[in-house]
Amino acid sequence: MKNREILLVKRPDGEPTDEHLSIEEAAIPALSDGEAIVRLLYVSVDPYMRGRMNEGKSYVEPFQLNQPMEGGAVAEVIESQSDKLQVGDIVTGSLPWREYTAIAAESVRKIDPALGPVTTSLHILGMTGLTAYFGLMDIGRPQEGETVVVSGAAGAVGSTVVQIATIAGARVVGIAGSEEKVQLVKQLGADEVINYQTEDVSSALAEACPNGVDIYFDNVGGDISDAVYPLLNKFARIVQCGAISSYNKKDDQGPRIQHYLIKSSALIKGFTVGDYRERYPEGLQHLSKWLQEGKLTYEETITEGFENIPQAFFGLFTGENIGKQLVKVNEPSRFGS
Amino acid sequence: MKNREILLVKRPDGEPTDEHLSIEEAAIPALSDGEAIVRLLYVSVDPYMRGRMNEGKSYVEPFQLNQPMEGGAVAEVIESQSDKLQVGDIVTGSLPWREYTAIAAESVRKIDPALGPVTTSLHILGMTGLTAYFGLMDIGRPQEGETVVVSGAAGAVGSTVVQIATIAGARVVGIAGSEEKVQLVKQLGADEVINYQTEDVSSALAEACPNGVDIYFDNVGGDISDAVYPLLNKFARIVQCGAISSYNKKDDQGPRIQHYLIKSSALIKGFTVGDYRERYPEGLQHLSKWLQEGKLTYEETITEGFENIPQAFFGLFTGENIGKQLVKVNEPSRFGS
Repeated sequence: MKNREILLVKRPDGEPTDEHLSIEEAAIPALSDGEAIVRLLYVSVDPYMRGRMNEGKSYVEPFQLNQPMEGGAVAEVIESQSDKLQVGDIVTGSLPWREYTAIAAESVRKIDPALGPVTTSLHILGMTGLTAYFGLMDIGRPQEGETVVVSGAAGAVGSTVVQIATIAGARVVGIAGSEEKVQLVKQLGADEVINYQTEDVSSALAEACPNGVDIYFDNVGGDISDAVYPLLNKFARIVQCGAISSYNKKDDQGPRIQHYLIKSSALIKGFTVGDYRERYPEGLQHLSKWLQEGKLTYEETITEGFENIPQAFFGLFTGENIGKQLVKVNEPSRFGS
Repeated sequence: MKNREILLVKRPDGEPTDEHLSIEEAAIPALSDGEAIVRLLYVSVDPYMRGRMNEGKSYVEPFQLNQPMEGGAVAEVIESQSDKLQVGDIVTGSLPWREYTAIAAESVRKIDPALGPVTTSLHILGMTGLTAYFGLMDIGRPQEGETVVVSGAAGAVGSTVVQIATIAGARVVGIAGSEEKVQLVKQLGADEVINYQTEDVSSALAEACPNGVDIYFDNVGGDISDAVYPLLNKFARIVQCGAISSYNKKDDQGPRIQHYLIKSSALIKGFTVGDYRERYPEGLQHLSKWLQEGKLTYEETITEGFENIPQAFFGLFTGENIGKQLVKVNEPSRFGS
């Protein structure tokens, strides 16, 4: 048994390239009590990882120099000294970019391969899908015929919300930032999609929502949300999933919104997917069923080979991927993907 | 039987005086099917009525010139052609300042005099108390030991919220705007009271809430609320009852708040008491029980005589009343007040 890992050897100034990452031979992991050794099957490469390559504080912890890169991954248990994990179990969690790793049993989540391809645990049957599911179904609670507005509708979470809201029989209005994204969101089933780069969002929304807004699934905050609040119906629900337009601004100001909530007896609820940890099985059952029925779709691009992880990551910044970019490192030994 | 009413005969520029209201003889009301004739017992005089004396649009409908003033009142049914109202029933609703009036049965709510003095249906066992009760108990859901912050804590609703939160075993922190109000709120049971006129609200709140804020009952919005949001605990609940600081400002701006809600998985819910119409009996049962046990107190000032309604109303603007200002017009014929 040989082992390899991918280290951050230099912090990039601009785009990350080969000089910043290095594939090195790694020690064979030793197994301790309560731990398991896993073999990497798939890794997810994501734009947010670029931020972690910088030194200094950000909203995420920086990667350490001369330590492996790390991120969402699927792996297979090949040895175990934990009664929570059996050899052959497929798990997901944040793992180092290393072929074999010793992990604490609590640091990963077991995947049921019967629910869908194991790669989906990195997107539609993972945090992305669960965020969309619980936000929309637990906070939004869509009823047939209600109007659901989704901001960031072409994003990973937003595009899933559009599909689930459509499944729920709602009228879905998406908001996105390019013609290409608008087309994507329409294909996912949205009744109307607004391009906030080229349209006046307030008047376009008023036209797209002749019966007002019952649910607003908000990924962005800012000006786009300001255009939604005046259209809220009585007892409207706002799912506050993200506020990306505010994250990098200090003291971001905008119109006060409290009076809209009083006028419409409306609700805003912030959340993170971890709030629903105990209900993940319920969410996964629903998502998996819709997936198997063909009601829920996703896009992924899969590159092959551990040694190609860096190229797949770099490719994110030149727009080479469609949908979720993954790298397949190994074939699972017991389950098909 | 003679009848009298109080008409708005001139719209005031500044403070209302005798020249703006006139006590006139009124027609004897005629009874139609589904209606009842009521005899006025108590009227509530309120500052907001001054706004209705102006011409033109406001957030409330203006009173008509040469028509009677109107507002919250308690009355007794003396004749009825509705099977929903019996002679002797005590009712409350918005009634004209007129001794005898024909009303539609649906326009009033029957009072159960066993719950408390009938005057309390104009405050603590009326809209004021029900607003405090449902906002705090249904949206806030206080748990023993949680921290509840109340803005506008000396107001009609706020002072009731302070008491109910205390009954629920919460740690209560009030915010009010004068030393006199601070003392009042302390007497009602608040653990800490902040004077926003003389203290820095942010630092005073941080000191008064060492364990953060679990529930924020907000009557005011604006700067005071801005100081509360950063202190929200995980799963905090904000009861958006009022936003009085924004009502008279066009395009009132402030810091965006969405990211606070995400960070703490918090909730803001706007409401009006009418949302709970079907549950009024439940709310009145609880409020009445606490009132009878002496756990809930209220203050009212009662002036006597129909002809003294105008003076009682004018007195609101010179600060003559303590607590709720009422005018007793008649003694109920069957029940003690």
